[in-house]
Amino acid sequence: MSLRFEISKTGGPARKGKLATPHGEIETPVFMPVGTAATVKGVSQDLLEQLGVQILLGNTYHLYLRPGIDQVRQLGGLHCFMSWPRAILTDSGGFQVFSLSDLRKLTEDGVTFRSHLDGSSHFLSPETAIEAQIGLGADIIMAFDECTEYPAEASRVRDSMEMTLRWAARSKKYFHEHKHEVSWNLDGATAVHARRDKSAVPSNAEHRSAGRVGAPAPTCSQENTQALFGIVQGGMDHALRKESAERTIEIGFDGYAIGGLSVGEPRSLTREIVESTIEHLPKDRPRYLMGVGTPEEIVEYSNLGIDMMDCVLPTRAARHGLLFTSEGKISIKQARYAGDQNPLDPSCSCQVCVRYSRAYLRHLYASNEVLAQVLNTIHNLSYYLDTMRRVRHSI
Amino acid sequence: MSLRFEISKTGGPARKGKLATPHGEIETPVFMPVGTAATVKGVSQDLLEQLGVQILLGNTYHLYLRPGIDQVRQLGGLHCFMSWPRAILTDSGGFQVFSLSDLRKLTEDGVTFRSHLDGSSHFLSPETAIEAQIGLGADIIMAFDECTEYPAEASRVRDSMEMTLRWAARSKKYFHEHKHEVSWNLDGATAVHARRDKSAVPSNAEHRSAGRVGAPAPTCSQENTQALFGIVQGGMDHALRKESAERTIEIGFDGYAIGGLSVGEPRSLTREIVESTIEHLPKDRPRYLMGVGTPEEIVEYSNLGIDMMDCVLPTRAARHGLLFTSEGKISIKQARYAGDQNPLDPSCSCQVCVRYSRAYLRHLYASNEVLAQVLNTIHNLSYYLDTMRRVRHSI
Repeated sequence: MSLRFEISKTGGPARKGKLATPHGEIETPVFMPVGTAATVKGVSQDLLEQLGVQILLGNTYHLYLRPGIDQVRQLGGLHCFMSWPRAILTDSGGFQVFSLSDLRKLTEDGVTFRSHLDGSSHFLSPETAIEAQIGLGADIIMAFDECTEYPAEASRVRDSMEMTLRWAARSKKYFHEHKHEVSWNLDGATAVHARRDKSAVPSNAEHRSAGRVGAPAPTCSQENTQALFGIVQGGMDHALRKESAERTIEIGFDGYAIGGLSVGEPRSLTREIVESTIEHLPKDRPRYLMGVGTPEEIVEYSNLGIDMMDCVLPTRAARHGLLFTSEGKISIKQARYAGDQNPLDPSCSCQVCVRYSRAYLRHLYASNEVLAQVLNTIHNLSYYLDTMRRVRHSI
Repeated sequence: MSLRFEISKTGGPARKGKLATPHGEIETPVFMPVGTAATVKGVSQDLLEQLGVQILLGNTYHLYLRPGIDQVRQLGGLHCFMSWPRAILTDSGGFQVFSLSDLRKLTEDGVTFRSHLDGSSHFLSPETAIEAQIGLGADIIMAFDECTEYPAEASRVRDSMEMTLRWAARSKKYFHEHKHEVSWNLDGATAVHARRDKSAVPSNAEHRSAGRVGAPAPTCSQENTQALFGIVQGGMDHALRKESAERTIEIGFDGYAIGGLSVGEPRSLTREIVESTIEHLPKDRPRYLMGVGTPEEIVEYSNLGIDMMDCVLPTRAARHGLLFTSEGKISIKQARYAGDQNPLDPSCSCQVCVRYSRAYLRHLYASNEVLAQVLNTIHNLSYYLDTMRRVRHSI
């Protein structure tokens, strides 16, 4: 097993645990900030470390298009490329591709799509998505699935779920045939690309980690391989979710994600589906709920027994001046904050709340200053990570 | 004297010294990063402190328009507003206003101009420019001058210089009648605006400084007032520069700036004018060369006897992907860096060069990621500040 998962405590359905990856241990339940293009927009890796980010999510679709998988692999994989020594999870690219509704064509084999950057044509399938994720070298990678749209006819939901199951099997097959090729497995006998760059990668990594304080260099040994997660689909149908879970577990993965939620359905329905799906997932494997949520939701889902979550909400909302605080949401662009000398959140001890006033943050936002995005993102991420610390503490 | 200036060493015309301001001591010669709208674009105040920034430049024109002088004053002045405990210098707004060539009307009294933001009409004069700068509360403020354009007829240069001298006298007169109104002079008997906010400002400052590591709260006492610098003009005419210097000194200021350079003239001419103007400036007062320069130029001017400089070049160039290194300039957008695993500058120990590769910085820039601007600015500022450290060490 490339991933060790140990539950140390439970509180009702909630679980507190540790997930050991080749790039460090993660305390769960965990929120994973989204670093789409090998960067959490506006926030340096030093700051992410200071904030206590344990694992980042990278988007295969974006990295596949720019700078390209070969480029990242030749530079030693995503960890080395972006100088991030802690854990990374990549999605399969499927979700982004399916979002390009006008630019894609779906067959049993996979998806042909046009780049949103330059219109060039590309193909993603279970095999190429896993190949790309092996090239990127995240600690946890995802099977290629179809995220069923909402609402959808019953037959459409079943067909989509069936295809996701076939794709899950193909994803697993390709992964097991190629997992030794991961770019951080530098001593792997068949790691052609990694070997080609062997002389360059370690020396540069040494150079940089030498000058870095408190950031140990990634430890990659031959024993370590990536972990592959399967994704449960089945729309908003409890029976299909049960079937999808059981058949995905039959294929066998290192962890299980619940996909196809947060796609426009009411929140009460999301909760229902999460709750009923969890019942069919193995207790000893990590459970990852994809693409959620608000601060309230990540607490709620943790309490239902979810171990991992990711969402663009804290970072995207920050860029729009929407800030999460212990006193509720604040839209910092509002004129009422122009003379407000209070910190953004008096209960928050992040570097933004400790140093700056709402008036200053409002000025930065109103003046379209880049520092607005930087500081707002730091605060929102801090708020999410603090929320998860409290959740873990409460279990 | 509100500003203590002590020269500890000289090396030919070059001087190494210390400038004591109400917000800390500055080692000279010093380069002042530009924080136009109360922010060095993309870089947090924590990082500026870590970089060793001793004094920031703020732009009165921009702050006057947004968030407005009254707003900043009511929030305790620029230091409190932006949470910057170290020294600040503000320009008079004149240079920006004169740059709005189509939007301004100049008379003996002052300049009527239209905001570049919303077209609203405003008036800046020696009196209103000083009033604004007292409201902002920088440690060092500048007389309102006219920056003579280049090239210009001899008679035009003289007329412009004469007006700058009359404006210098008016600037000084207004300053001496109103300098006790500075917003950080919290105990000042006539500091109406400061007193009004007294209850709010210190408590918030305390709140924030309490949680801050290594950043002492600004120390403002009744003894401290701002310092006012005069500006020498006179175009590219040595005789007029001499006359402008002598008559500006006669009016009497805490320090002397050389203005009206870096306005399109050849660099050799800039150097000539700087060299000949310095001869006429008092040895015991700080000399500030406005709006320069490249890394080579800031070394050169320091060696001629300049004590203070500012320029948007390091920060603006960074935003355009132009980086200064010990091996020359690098345009990080170039495809040749896409696979380059070397640090940006192997001789630089800034947090960017220690952690990231050129390939990663190139990816961020090519992907239009905000972190590109953040990291590029940190490096360029670090390079400028290191350059000045070396200059001071070499004197």
